Amino acid sequence: MEPRISLVTLGVSDLVVSREFYRRLGWEPVLDVEETVFFQLGPMVLSLWSRRSLAEDAGMVDRGGWGGFALAHNVGSAAEVDAVIAEATAAGATITRPPGPTTWGGYTGIFCDPDGHPWEVAHNPGFTLGEDGSLTIPV
Amino acid sequence: MEPRISLVTLGVSDLVVSREFYRRLGWEPVLDVEETVFFQLGPMVLSLWSRRSLAEDAGMVDRGGWGGFALAHNVGSAAEVDAVIAEATAAGATITRPPGPTTWGGYTGIFCDPDGHPWEVAHNPGFTLGEDGSLTIPV
Repeated sequence: MEPRISLVTLGVSDLVVSREFYRRLGWEPVLDVEETVFFQLGPMVLSLWSRRSLAEDAGMVDRGGWGGFALAHNVGSAAEVDAVIAEATAAGATITRPPGPTTWGGYTGIFCDPDGHPWEVAHNPGFTLGEDGSLTIPV
Repeated sequence: MEPRISLVTLGVSDLVVSREFYRRLGWEPVLDVEETVFFQLGPMVLSLWSRRSLAEDAGMVDRGGWGGFALAHNVGSAAEVDAVIAEATAAGATITRPPGPTTWGGYTGIFCDPDGHPWEVAHNPGFTLGEDGSLTIPV
């Protein structure tokens, strides 16, 4: 299996609300069909789909709530973390950890989208953030 | 907020088991520190971390179970879907949907990792899979 995540699907309870939230963050859908919204995120895709449909499709038992995962959006400085968290707050996000320094020498904050999916906005000086948006771990 | 997912963190109950599972899929960690395992997946990163620690760090209430998300790994043909699902099965994955044609003209199957995180292995002839592994939605 090649090392690749092509697409991340987030299950949502109200597609209109979620689409509007990500639009407010500046993300414009490239495809909006069959009750699924797709965003092109550089070399990969984010899709929003009914959580109920996703559970049925994937054969999951859904008891609700958080399921043990987080997404991260890396930026180039602590100031940019603050700026993105402020942008997310303005878009209606819930901040579950305000921006601040971490034990590993970085600076991060965490917001949740309307369905409680967590995004860590991170500045990690130990990783390389390319001009193309790629994140590389030096080896 | 720029359109970018830099990193995906999967919360795990047993880091040794999960690391070994992804190794069996052919993914070699590039960093293994402070009870966190990092894999370089092209322009992004996958990390495995204690689900309990992730919940605490992100301010999440964890009632266990699935949380409304899925990852997808796109490949170039239906035969490749079958091959990756077979590979995942051999690595110990649980198959929650055997490979087969979809209503939207694709061909996919779904496996879960040791913590029940779902991966859809997908051939989508409507999207463009680049030689560099990028997935692009034609506009």
